[in-house]
Amino acid sequence: METAVLLIDCPDQKGLVARVSGMLYALGANILHADQHQDHELGLFFMRVEWTLDGGQKAGDGAMGRAVERFAASFAPMAEALRMRWRLRRTGQRPRVAIFCSQYLHCVADLLYRSSAEELECEIAAVISNHREVESLAAFYGIRFEHIPVTAAARQEAEAKQLALLTAERVELVVLARYMQILSADFVAQYPSAIINVHHSFLPAFIGARPYHAAHARGVKLIGATSHYVTTELDDGPIIEQDVARISHRDQVEDLVARGRDLERVVLSRAVRWHLEQRILCYGNKTVVFD
Amino acid sequence: METAVLLIDCPDQKGLVARVSGMLYALGANILHADQHQDHELGLFFMRVEWTLDGGQKAGDGAMGRAVERFAASFAPMAEALRMRWRLRRTGQRPRVAIFCSQYLHCVADLLYRSSAEELECEIAAVISNHREVESLAAFYGIRFEHIPVTAAARQEAEAKQLALLTAERVELVVLARYMQILSADFVAQYPSAIINVHHSFLPAFIGARPYHAAHARGVKLIGATSHYVTTELDDGPIIEQDVARISHRDQVEDLVARGRDLERVVLSRAVRWHLEQRILCYGNKTVVFD
Amino acid sequence: METAVLLIDCPDQKGLVARVSGMLYALGANILHADQHQDHELGLFFMRVEWTLDGGQKAGDGAMGRAVERFAASFAPMAEALRMRWRLRRTGQRPRVAIFCSQYLHCVADLLYRSSAEELECEIAAVISNHREVESLAAFYGIRFEHIPVTAAARQEAEAKQLALLTAERVELVVLARYMQILSADFVAQYPSAIINVHHSFLPAFIGARPYHAAHARGVKLIGATSHYVTTELDDGPIIEQDVARISHRDQVEDLVARGRDLERVVLSRAVRWHLEQRILCYGNKTVVFD
Amino acid sequence: METAVLLIDCPDQKGLVARVSGMLYALGANILHADQHQDHELGLFFMRVEWTLDGGQKAGDGAMGRAVERFAASFAPMAEALRMRWRLRRTGQRPRVAIFCSQYLHCVADLLYRSSAEELECEIAAVISNHREVESLAAFYGIRFEHIPVTAAARQEAEAKQLALLTAERVELVVLARYMQILSADFVAQYPSAIINVHHSFLPAFIGARPYHAAHARGVKLIGATSHYVTTELDDGPIIEQDVARISHRDQVEDLVARGRDLERVVLSRAVRWHLEQRILCYGNKTVVFD
Repeated sequence: METAVLLIDCPDQKGLVARVSGMLYALGANILHADQHQDHELGLFFMRVEWTLDGGQKAGDGAMGRAVERFAASFAPMAEALRMRWRLRRTGQRPRVAIFCSQYLHCVADLLYRSSAEELECEIAAVISNHREVESLAAFYGIRFEHIPVTAAARQEAEAKQLALLTAERVELVVLARYMQILSADFVAQYPSAIINVHHSFLPAFIGARPYHAAHARGVKLIGATSHYVTTELDDGPIIEQDVARISHRDQVEDLVARGRDLERVVLSRAVRWHLEQRILCYGNKTVVFD
Repeated sequence: METAVLLIDCPDQKGLVARVSGMLYALGANILHADQHQDHELGLFFMRVEWTLDGGQKAGDGAMGRAVERFAASFAPMAEALRMRWRLRRTGQRPRVAIFCSQYLHCVADLLYRSSAEELECEIAAVISNHREVESLAAFYGIRFEHIPVTAAARQEAEAKQLALLTAERVELVVLARYMQILSADFVAQYPSAIINVHHSFLPAFIGARPYHAAHARGVKLIGATSHYVTTELDDGPIIEQDVARISHRDQVEDLVARGRDLERVVLSRAVRWHLEQRILCYGNKTVVFD
Repeated sequence: METAVLLIDCPDQKGLVARVSGMLYALGANILHADQHQDHELGLFFMRVEWTLDGGQKAGDGAMGRAVERFAASFAPMAEALRMRWRLRRTGQRPRVAIFCSQYLHCVADLLYRSSAEELECEIAAVISNHREVESLAAFYGIRFEHIPVTAAARQEAEAKQLALLTAERVELVVLARYMQILSADFVAQYPSAIINVHHSFLPAFIGARPYHAAHARGVKLIGATSHYVTTELDDGPIIEQDVARISHRDQVEDLVARGRDLERVVLSRAVRWHLEQRILCYGNKTVVFD
Repeated sequence: METAVLLIDCPDQKGLVARVSGMLYALGANILHADQHQDHELGLFFMRVEWTLDGGQKAGDGAMGRAVERFAASFAPMAEALRMRWRLRRTGQRPRVAIFCSQYLHCVADLLYRSSAEELECEIAAVISNHREVESLAAFYGIRFEHIPVTAAARQEAEAKQLALLTAERVELVVLARYMQILSADFVAQYPSAIINVHHSFLPAFIGARPYHAAHARGVKLIGATSHYVTTELDDGPIIEQDVARISHRDQVEDLVARGRDLERVVLSRAVRWHLEQRILCYGNKTVVFD
């Protein structure tokens, strides 16, 4: 059954749920899931509606595509009047994704496997790395691999190549799967709320390099990992997901690294899946994640 | 700010969200939270809406009470036409609760403390026990205590006393806080979806008596606790909440009992809180718990 | 069955396990639990041994007390030769504890209940507060209550009163159960590794005041609580225990506060229990917690 | 640094720790980790000691191999006198492992990746499947693949082929990575405490087929996965590890299946790793897992 997801955020006012659901009803749509959220402090309204047409549509017969266009045309004037930001996407449209990685492969291997096993609804357009370790893995999954070395001297040039590739491949989402380079503000500005990173700590604890060493030095009893959208401030973008694992005095830094890998895989893959399922809205430095 | 909560379940059909939210809008209500769920297999629709009036009302000025009555009058015909079961309650109306316990006091002590600290929005009408251990604790919190011994021979008589007390105290929710007696089918029938029990295992594992002993004998690596509505079948009612804790080969039965106490407190108090906040709908042998 | 616990830390060298266990064997002791740990980086050795005498001793018959004295006399020369720090305590000797609190009572209420229910092996010697809210609760449990107001101007005087009371009551462990005053370096120096605090964040994130507000502002997806020994540096002492709970965009600051209370109760009571069971060794700014 | 692990279980008696550690000391061994456990009910003693020689040995110089032989020769008479079962293994000796799977590949893909990334200290000798889906994955990792179809009629024949392959490959551990066939009692008897299975439920809840369907039907709020040694009784062998994940009324069976995959990967890989690290002792129907 093909469905469509409408994501909205706008200044809060009375009657928003009634107006959106009324319009969907008028267009013959059947709401499968509706979820809304208000930030009363900031006076903001957020809504996610997943809907389909009567009786469901088979993918490919075009009815859903036409319905989505018709809805969009009807919805636009109301959205403008209510100062809504909105996105509407059919679930059959699989976003194109690029994965950036360096020498640690556990996250990229996990994402490639999940994509191949249909756990993630996307097309992996390319794997880009400043190293070559991932090359054979990408080849196994039949994914384009690009080796783009990054040096302090030629960072700008490397980013130009990366951006050209992203454009050529019509990439909508960039996933940093333990990519050990910092992207420039210019790069980040090209993909607002569309670059997902995994940081190997429970943010905001242990920002920056070597967080497992810092966690070991501090003697914490739980370690964590965090997936977040990348902004220009290091490790400070809107958090999407976090998880933790228990450690003890017996665990050395290398044990933390090993346990952390499982956390990193899980929090990154969840963030990517939720993004692909249109479950996430960013506002300020936070996320609404509809479940 | 006084609010009201509307809980609905009915056969699913198109336009339900639009109709309910439209009617609330027409009555001048502002939706604070709306959540809905569909069981596509069974064709059922569930909705929870928390709403208030423009600008909010102060508790006690009567406007909210009148608005709720007006809404109920307008809503009833539509609800009947759509075969809805529905409940509408102002959050200011604190349900009256009775706690049943026996000799283990950790759950009842936790509930009494939470109630006194305003963590639970209810009036504890009475503590009823087949033992006397809890008496001084109830006295400290200024709660009526009734000692109703239960023997195999006089179970029916004891239940008659309990029921009379519940009626006299206008009790709407019964909480079994490690109450070690089994209630009769007749008793349970008086309080459908209104008796909450805590079972000290991860149901459906280890149904019945001495679950920690059974867990120890089986060599599990996690123990659990479960809060659920009581039905006539032992430990088989709709599950509200579950949680687990890690154990190891070092833990003896008494260690499991000790760790389990923290689980029991937490899963029982969550279930009671969610029930009081009108977050739970039962259907078949399951619960919808709106968060 | 009465037991004794021996806690050791010293520079690491070969044969330490053999020497300690050999000496216990020679004295007729039966090892119930033995656990050891080495910090290879720092070259340190840690050991905890719980032992009893042949066939077990009944508390109070004096045999265990004499055995402990005999062991101590035999052990001292070896300990000195090996530069050991060591503590030996019979489990029947219940340490005297003082609880400090302010206006939030959930932690102190939890500790008092647990102590009365024999979940904690100690004597609560006194509850000390700069407010009066806890007075009736302390009275219910039959615990001495002292109201010692603390003002910026008269902090030193207040601490002098507190210290006098601790001395008079022979207190060995101070528990800060959401005590909202900062203790002076002089006070802390009197009770090295013997003041346990609970901080309502996942340290080292959100050090200092109002951590739930900070967590909400940062948009984290998990909140935490941490119990630790107090040192002169705020919220920076050796961490004993941490735990977390999942939150979502729906949770306001007051929801974080409410969920956090359950975390605080649990991490503080675990820390106190482990301390009383002689499971914790501090070194540098870390803890070894033997399980 | 090469180390050796000694695993012991025997009837409990006084002085065992002293005797084992004394003998290691006499042989010039340095204890890196020692952990012991007693089952007081059954009167059993368990011990794990990881040790090395003075100053550590480089793998391959033979000193450790000779020391292990010398230790074994000295230890055997004492072990026999004390009725010990014992195993001694150098960590450099990587056990040979066979993975059995069917059509779900998430567990086998995870194990192959981890092995290739040196997260598991073993040699994967072969992947055996009654289907062909895994073939290309095995090829990518350079692992022998054998397709051995299993039919009800020819089960015995299939098992004979499997056993022949295991013998030829000198396999010490069999991992059932979502292998959807039940092994015969004869097969199981060949590998006592050496076949690890993952069951996709929180055992003992939901034994047998389709546990996610059963969990959904029961309306549980947490789902689980369990890794255990295979015995002749279905899903009833000694449990090694369990973990759970939270679900809600929103989750359909397919959501449970998807979430469960992450649990299955994690509990199976942990069990395999602990087995390889010689951390597990079975007794009766339980495991001691030294951490």
